[in-house]
Formats: sequence, C-alpha cells, structure tokens
Amino acid sequence: MNETVTDTEKTVDPAALAARLAGEMPADIAEALNEEIPQVAAAILQNLPLDTAVAVLDTPGLHDAGEIVEAIPRDRVVPMLSGMSADRAADVFLELDEPVRSELMARLDSETKASVRQLLTYPEESVGSLMTTEFVSVPATWTVAQTLQHVRMVERSRETVYAIYVLDPRSKVLLKAVPLRRLITADPNDSVLAAAPARRPVTISPHASREEATRLISKYDLLAVPVVDGTGQLVGIVTVDDVIDAIVERQTEEVQRFGGMEAIDVPYMDIGFAEMIRKRAGWLCALFISEMLTTSAMQGFQGELEKAIVLTLFIPLIMSSGGNSGSQATSLLIRALALRELQLIDWWRVALRELPTGIMLGSILGVIGIARITLWQIFGLYDYGPHWLLLSATVAAALVGIVTFGSMVGSMLPFVLRAIGFDPAAASAPFVATLVDVTGLVIYFGVAALILRGTLL
Amino acid sequence: MNETVTDTEKTVDPAALAARLAGEMPADIAEALNEEIPQVAAAILQNLPLDTAVAVLDTPGLHDAGEIVEAIPRDRVVPMLSGMSADRAADVFLELDEPVRSELMARLDSETKASVRQLLTYPEESVGSLMTTEFVSVPATWTVAQTLQHVRMVERSRETVYAIYVLDPRSKVLLKAVPLRRLITADPNDSVLAAAPARRPVTISPHASREEATRLISKYDLLAVPVVDGTGQLVGIVTVDDVIDAIVERQTEEVQRFGGMEAIDVPYMDIGFAEMIRKRAGWLCALFISEMLTTSAMQGFQGELEKAIVLTLFIPLIMSSGGNSGSQATSLLIRALALRELQLIDWWRVALRELPTGIMLGSILGVIGIARITLWQIFGLYDYGPHWLLLSATVAAALVGIVTFGSMVGSMLPFVLRAIGFDPAAASAPFVATLVDVTGLVIYFGVAALILRGTLL
Repeated sequence: MNETVTDTEKTVDPAALAARLAGEMPADIAEALNEEIPQVAAAILQNLPLDTAVAVLDTPGLHDAGEIVEAIPRDRVVPMLSGMSADRAADVFLELDEPVRSELMARLDSETKASVRQLLTYPEESVGSLMTTEFVSVPATWTVAQTLQHVRMVERSRETVYAIYVLDPRSKVLLKAVPLRRLITADPNDSVLAAAPARRPVTISPHASREEATRLISKYDLLAVPVVDGTGQLVGIVTVDDVIDAIVERQTEEVQRFGGMEAIDVPYMDIGFAEMIRKRAGWLCALFISEMLTTSAMQGFQGELEKAIVLTLFIPLIMSSGGNSGSQATSLLIRALALRELQLIDWWRVALRELPTGIMLGSILGVIGIARITLWQIFGLYDYGPHWLLLSATVAAALVGIVTFGSMVGSMLPFVLRAIGFDPAAASAPFVATLVDVTGLVIYFGVAALILRGTLL
Repeated sequence: MNETVTDTEKTVDPAALAARLAGEMPADIAEALNEEIPQVAAAILQNLPLDTAVAVLDTPGLHDAGEIVEAIPRDRVVPMLSGMSADRAADVFLELDEPVRSELMARLDSETKASVRQLLTYPEESVGSLMTTEFVSVPATWTVAQTLQHVRMVERSRETVYAIYVLDPRSKVLLKAVPLRRLITADPNDSVLAAAPARRPVTISPHASREEATRLISKYDLLAVPVVDGTGQLVGIVTVDDVIDAIVERQTEEVQRFGGMEAIDVPYMDIGFAEMIRKRAGWLCALFISEMLTTSAMQGFQGELEKAIVLTLFIPLIMSSGGNSGSQATSLLIRALALRELQLIDWWRVALRELPTGIMLGSILGVIGIARITLWQIFGLYDYGPHWLLLSATVAAALVGIVTFGSMVGSMLPFVLRAIGFDPAAASAPFVATLVDVTGLVIYFGVAALILRGTLL
C-alpha cells in the first residue's frame, strides 16, 4: 500500500507542501488538500505542475472543489478546467456561484465549453449528468490500423480508450463497441468492423437513472457503457469508475435513509451543526407527530387501562416486536427491488410469502412470551393476578397478530412507495415501526377485549 | 438496451433453446438459465458452443452453478472448467460436494488445478478469495514491442490485459504496473520500464479484506489492483468487475443487517421458507428477550403507574423517539466507519458532536410535545387532569433526555462493535431501539418522579 499521511502543520508553506506532494498519487494529494482550507488548497494546487493539478481536480474525492477553483486566479484556473474531464468539470461548475460561473465558462475553449454546457443540461440523478463526452469514436469505414493510430493520437485526452465506438460515417449512429484488447490482436488491415463482436452493443439513454447504468455495467462486466440519444447517436459514455463512486454514494444514502434521516453526502465530521439538525429533525418530527396517534389510541383505551394496569407492562415489548419484524421485511424488499429481483406486479407473491412467515415468527415469539409469564408467575418473581394464564394467551395472540401485521406492512411499503413514484429506499426502519405501532396497540387491546372480557376487563 | 426476456415454456427443448440463446450476451443467457432447474440448465449449456458455455459459467449472476456442473457429464464439463477464469472456477468448486469435487479437480489440467487449489486456500472474505491468477506479467528486461507481442498472444486467456505487471526477472518481485494505453502510445523499442509511471504501484495483500480492495480501486480509479504476498511477489489481481459484485453484495448485506436480520445472499423469491424463518427468527428472538427488560422495568414502576395512569399514554411516543434518534445516529456512523472517514480513536469527537445534537433534537420534539398536550387540554379534546402543565414538562424533559441518550448510544454502538472485533454494520436499527427502550423507560419515570413528586406521584 502506498498512501500518504500528511500532518496538518500550524503554518503551511504552499510551495513546500506542493513540492512534497508532487510525487504522490492524485487521490492522495486530494486527501491531503481536504485537510486544508480552500484558500490554502488553492495555493498548493497552483504550485503543482499543471497536469498534476488537473489530475487532482479530476478526483471526485476532493472536497469543496468549487471554493478551491474560486480561490485560484482566473488565468491560472482556466487551463486547469480545460484539462479536466468534461464530466468532472461540469460537477465543479455546479458548485460555482455567479458571477464566477459565467465568467469562467466564457473563458473556456469552445470544445470544453460545449461539452460542459451539454452535460449541465441533464437532471442531477440521470445518466446524462454522470457521463463524460470524452470517448474514442471512429467511422465504420476505417481499418484496424487507422483506428489504433487514432487511439494513440487521442489517448491523453480521453477518459478511457479501452472501448472504441464505431459509428455509421453518415448518420453518426452507434454501430459497434470494440474492446481495445480485440483491436490489438486483430489484423491491422482488416476493417474495424471485422474486429468488433457480432452483438449489438449494450447502450443506455441519457435520461435513464444512475442505478440503471450501474446495473448494466455490473451485469455485463463493462468498463464503460455508451450513452445514445433517441436517434441512436452516441452522446457520451459512463465509465466504471464513475459507477463505483455512484454505487458507494448510493449505498451511504440508502443506509442513512433506512436509518430514518435525509441523506448527507459529506463526511460525518464535515457536517455543520445546523445542517445536521436539519437533516435529522425533519424525519424525527414527522415520525414523532405520527407516533402521537399512539397517545390518542391509548386515550381511547383508557377504560381498559384503568381496569387492567397489568396490560401496560407488555406494551413496549409487543409494539417493538411489530416494528422489528417490519424492519426486517422492509430491508429485504428494498434490496430485492433495487436489484430488480422483483417488479411492482410481484407484490402479491411477496404478500403470500410474508403472511405465513409473519405467522410463524409471531408464534415463536408468542411461545417465548408465554414461557416468560409462566416462569415469573410460578417462581413468584411477579404476580400477574389470578388470570395470568388468560393474560399470557392475550400476549401470545397479540404477538402473532402484530408480527404478522408488521411483516405485511414492512414488505408492502416499498411496493407502495414505488407505485406512487417514490424511491422504495425511502421506507426507513423508524417509518415502518411508526406505521406498525398504532395498529399494534389496537390489535393488542382488541385481542385483550376478546380474551379478557368478563375476567380482567 | 439489449436484454432478453425468455418465457419459461412448459416443455423445454434444450437444443432449441440453446440455439435461440447462442447469440445473446453471456449475462443474458445466465439470466435465462436461472429460470430453469439445474438439470435443464446443464442440458442447454451442453448444446451451446464451448466458449459461450464457458462465458456463461463465468458469469457471477448464474445461480446454482455447482448443481449445474454436477449435472453435466464429466468429460463434457472438464473443458468448461478449464476454460473458466480461475477465480470463478474456484467459486464453483466451493459449491461442489464430494466426491464430485475431488473427481473433477483431478481431471483439470495442471495449470488450472494449481490456480484453483491456491485460490481455495484463502478465507472467504479475503482478497485472496476474490482475486484471479490470470494476469499479464512480463520481465523488466523486455521492450515495449516484446510486451505488446506477449499481450496479443495471451489476450484470450487473461481476465484483463489493460494492466500489465512488470516483474524483477530474478526475484519475480512486482516493480511496476503499466496501463495498456501507455504501452500502445510508447516507442516500441523502449524498455517496458520506460513506459511505466514513475510511481510504485498500489498493491494489496491476499489477506486484506474485500472492503480494502474496493476502497483502493475506487480511490485510485483502477481497473485492477495487484495482490502481492509478503515477499513482494505478484500472486493475483482483483479486477474492477469483481469489486462491483462485491460492493453490491455488501450493500445488500448491510441494509439487511441494519434491518435487524442475518444477511441473505440469494434473491428474495429463492429463499426457502425454513431459511427465511431461520435468518429472521434469531435476531427477532434475541431482541424480544432483551426487550423483556422493559416489562421488568415497568413492573418496577408499578406504584407510579397505578397512581398516574396518564403517564402510560406517552410511553410509546417517548420510547419510539429515542429509538428513532438512535437509528439515525447509527446509520450515520456505520457508513462513516465503512468509508474510513472516522477511525476508532475518533469516538470522543463523535460523542462531543452527538451530545449537543441530541439535546437540540430532543428539545425540538419536547416543544412539539408540550404544544400537543396544551392544545388537547385547552380545546377540551382530552383532560390530562389539574397537573397537565407539570405533565407536559415531564414529557418534554424526558424527550430531551431520551433523544440525547438515543443519539449517544446509537453513535457509540458502531465504535463499540468495532473495538470488540465485530463489524460496525451489525448495529441494526432494532438493536439500537431495544438498547434505548429500557433506559428510556427509566429516564421517563425518573423525570416523572422528580417533577411530579407531591402532585401526581
């Protein structure tokens, strides 16, 4: 391993630090710059060789790239932006404020400007915003030798040269994708089409989701997937390293949202206090207000509560079991939907599986619940009163009902969210628990009314 | 897009189906075979051209590869196994039962046998079990032209040729990693070392974790990371597509475990009923038994409960808020630790952030709680008795205490798990909620005892 540990000195000499960092990998330099304030990072970047500075700015791991770019004098930063890959440059432009944004855009060379402008038109979560326009394409009339010569010429300015796209010379429609490994083993005098695989290339629309790009690259083991518009013309490529960054980002979002908060895309220690509160308070308040229904429900059962305080002892136990089984089911279904193992229309097949699963799991907990009450009663640890057997039957029956209900709600919620156009991953564990809690109380007191009528109630 | 939808016919003619599938992408053929029972899949594979059958078996998306291999006659399956990439062949051997496993192993050619044997020695979650031995390496004495000629020769049998590894001719120690794109633009008469980047290559140990391989490939945008043993010799490579599969698998595991169950690595509809119960019942029972402490706690507060039944109305509301804030904090910290944004020693910095965050969030909920009780009381929706102001103060103070406690427990649990050698991702939302619930009750009744002593209590 080959990583750099850079201590943050009290006084930073940008030139000295730049000299020390110059030999490191761009990702390691970016990590070192993340330890500095944007102004210092900007000073260090200016002291690095231009191609190193460009490579560092090209690293998605670099924080506050917008602020760093703003802190570099215009005439120094323009060559850096022009040298960057178009997709990353577009990301940086998104972080810039006006008037700096327009000012810098105006000074870019026309080719870069056109690419960045085009990339900025796509919505944030689309393939269009993830792709780069720096790919290698050749007309179908070329030979293998011509193509290889072209690859050598443009190698420096392309994000990948390992997939070469063959276009119809007139319509510019994408015909084939040739891996470089096939090209270097082919006869140089052959047509480039002869070196191409027989199959039509896997392609994606610029309006498709990032998840779809991930799925195609992962399924077909691609290094890049070509992005084609409605007319079949090649407009960009999504490379495997962009996809990896997107998956890791998505994974963090998914876990945070499942934990019941808005996703945060900056490292934990970099989140400001106000933002931390904002991202967490929203869901926490929404859940709190929904959960108030439990108070209303219990107010409704006040008569039962006064007659049989012993019932209250099991409320947290029973309610949490419903939430837990719901949380399990939700986590299973969020992933099954994300991985496309299941479609929306499969909801009833899932419901038919969750029903017996919930009954079985609830029964297991019910038996444990009966054992707990019986043991405490027999060994004199607590006196649940003369009707303790009926009480334990109430707890067990309520557990079967609530765990089954929890499994059903937890498994159906991701389908409901997808059906109404939301991301199934918005179904968080606390959300499911809150949904289940009120009904759980109603089930518990309903079962109690049935079993204990005439004795405790 | 270019995907196949294959309807499962009632009667399957393997030869006809094979003819229809032969032109598809291997990943699509694998998907079609997943719809069939292993015996039918085996029959179809035998009807495909050998290199297509090999490519399908090489697809990680193929289910039950072990059973399929067992269903193919020995003399037909041996060439397929020999043609597969060594890492995937090793995965398939892991799925085979004895005596088939030893029988097939004995019939492999000696090179494949040695590779598979070596790969099988590494533990399941290690880089060694993820890597392949099929890489391109050349001695440092070779020229660019010699190296390119070698790449052309071995292209078919190597998992990737886009990174070429330059070894010390005597010690076989890894010196450099040369990207193919650099090689094809270099002077053919130069030494291969001259085409290599100045930096030492990023490497990994076969005993490192899969997460570490993912992190390196993602950070440095690599197509493959070389695996070197203690002596610096190259023993394999981990390619980016293996890493993507590992990340996606890990993501599913992380969400499922956060949902409070054991991870399941097969698609939802393929899980047997018994396995589904087993994977879910374990944690559900453990959480249920722990949550029984809430019953014990409430038994301890029976005196208070009898005097002030009104207190019970807020128990579900207050307890769930503690669990929710804990779940948020846990989800944040699981990802921060997984992405290495934080180390174990940073626990106190996190605690110092979560303390004010929890107090702030608890205060927000406390204000909403007071508003709720006040509104209901003033508008006559419910009568909380003459001491309703003190009651609302109790609820608010308890919320501050419980939400703060929840945030602290939720954020510290991942650190504790890592410190005692567990995966921080084992800290599930239900686990945190259960930990917080008992203490939440104690805090609530403790605050009530302080504020309501002499009035309600």
